[in-house]
Amino acid sequence: MQRLEHRACFGGWQDVWRHESATLGCTMNVGVYLPPQAALGPCPVLYWLSGLTCTEQNAITKAGAQRYAAEHGLILVMPDTSPRGEGVADAEGYDIGLGAGFYVNATQAPWATHYRMHDYVVFELPAWIEAHFPTNGQRSISGHSMGGHGALVAALRHPGRYRSVSAFAPIVAPSVVPWGQKIFRAYLGEDTTIWREWDACALIEHATERLHILVDQGEADDFLAEQLRPELLEQACLSANHALTLRRHAGYDHSYYFIASFVGEHIEWHARALAAG
Amino acid sequence: MQRLEHRACFGGWQDVWRHESATLGCTMNVGVYLPPQAALGPCPVLYWLSGLTCTEQNAITKAGAQRYAAEHGLILVMPDTSPRGEGVADAEGYDIGLGAGFYVNATQAPWATHYRMHDYVVFELPAWIEAHFPTNGQRSISGHSMGGHGALVAALRHPGRYRSVSAFAPIVAPSVVPWGQKIFRAYLGEDTTIWREWDACALIEHATERLHILVDQGEADDFLAEQLRPELLEQACLSANHALTLRRHAGYDHSYYFIASFVGEHIEWHARALAAG
Repeated sequence: MQRLEHRACFGGWQDVWRHESATLGCTMNVGVYLPPQAALGPCPVLYWLSGLTCTEQNAITKAGAQRYAAEHGLILVMPDTSPRGEGVADAEGYDIGLGAGFYVNATQAPWATHYRMHDYVVFELPAWIEAHFPTNGQRSISGHSMGGHGALVAALRHPGRYRSVSAFAPIVAPSVVPWGQKIFRAYLGEDTTIWREWDACALIEHATERLHILVDQGEADDFLAEQLRPELLEQACLSANHALTLRRHAGYDHSYYFIASFVGEHIEWHARALAAG
Repeated sequence: MQRLEHRACFGGWQDVWRHESATLGCTMNVGVYLPPQAALGPCPVLYWLSGLTCTEQNAITKAGAQRYAAEHGLILVMPDTSPRGEGVADAEGYDIGLGAGFYVNATQAPWATHYRMHDYVVFELPAWIEAHFPTNGQRSISGHSMGGHGALVAALRHPGRYRSVSAFAPIVAPSVVPWGQKIFRAYLGEDTTIWREWDACALIEHATERLHILVDQGEADDFLAEQLRPELLEQACLSANHALTLRRHAGYDHSYYFIASFVGEHIEWHARALAAG
């Protein structure tokens, strides 16, 4: 493992690491923010999953989350959004291939070789983080758009693994929206029953753990009506009696200006759950 | 004038405008953050001058200043760092020409045609801002590196124009460091007596207004010893009995992670001065 960046930030350190991922069969960049408290003892970890086209850089430079992580003593872990490097499959379009891992485990050629972002962010990355950084073993998870989908699916598929989950403008029902259908067809094949295993709204029906979900959604988000459809999550949570706080914000779009405006409240939410745990 | 971006952010709006600058002879992009208070009545303005290679985008996406501006009710104005467009002179190197206006009024060919960034940020830009946005006519100024130099020189040359001034890692003595000497020779010519009119340390000697200066400087800044030399500002302020708060921060570098970590305290400092005014 190699440290690519090391920057003092709000009394702690915003680092970028490169490590070998056996799950993905490539090296991966990961942003790790260590709050000042991490110099004194173990801290809980909030995993942040970014959206389409992002690398680890978007969240670490634009979200402004470090300030709140420093206040609450959380480590932030912000991975890249797909496998990278020579030999990793790609295709035309910003919404498939590089930058669009979609946090699933692909089963179809040519994607199955490297595109196993779900196993990477849920298992291999936390194991690596917990082996090399001063964590107390507690985890929470959040993300944006494709990464909001990734966070919800990670929490819903793995009861007990996360103390709390939240999302910004998540793709809540990938099985029924164009971004998700394009990816699922390519990465998972034509059998739509398998798609439901990677779809937060479908997973909610059978959730055994009642983790209260926090979602923020901008009402001026260009992707709201076609790709995000938070009303489907609202219906699924209502049907399953699953606790959801869905906040709609007039004027806000899909950008990091939206995330920056509310990430402090998400970190406070996760910090409360982690402290209670 | 044309609005290029309009993003809800911390209850206000982070916009980017393009306007015609007669001073520079080109169109210029300007980031303008309107805090929620600007919807209710006039607000004071903090001008932010960015450093070498920046456009208006760096500060608006990476500094995280909007949160604090929203708390204190300040409008943030964040211009580009040089004239732009076809016909604007440029030269080899990131530290001259485009992205390196240096906030002086050039007198030498080919620079004199467009490179009048001092007059632009001190006169034309505030006049345009005050004509089109809900300001109360009060101004403060801050900046980073080349922009820290620009902010200090603007305040020192124009007593009464700003309520307060601060800087992050400023070039305090451009006459005697390589970045400044290269630019001054090109933009202002060989007469070093003229250089002193654009050099904060030299201007401090004859300052008629005793604006207390706040400077933050990272001790892990790669440019500290050769280009920034804050000890020269310390000496100049001591000799002239000019109030200076110079804070040195162990571990911090020259990046926006450094700015983000302390910009909240700068905005609070400016807000206090603007409220008292």
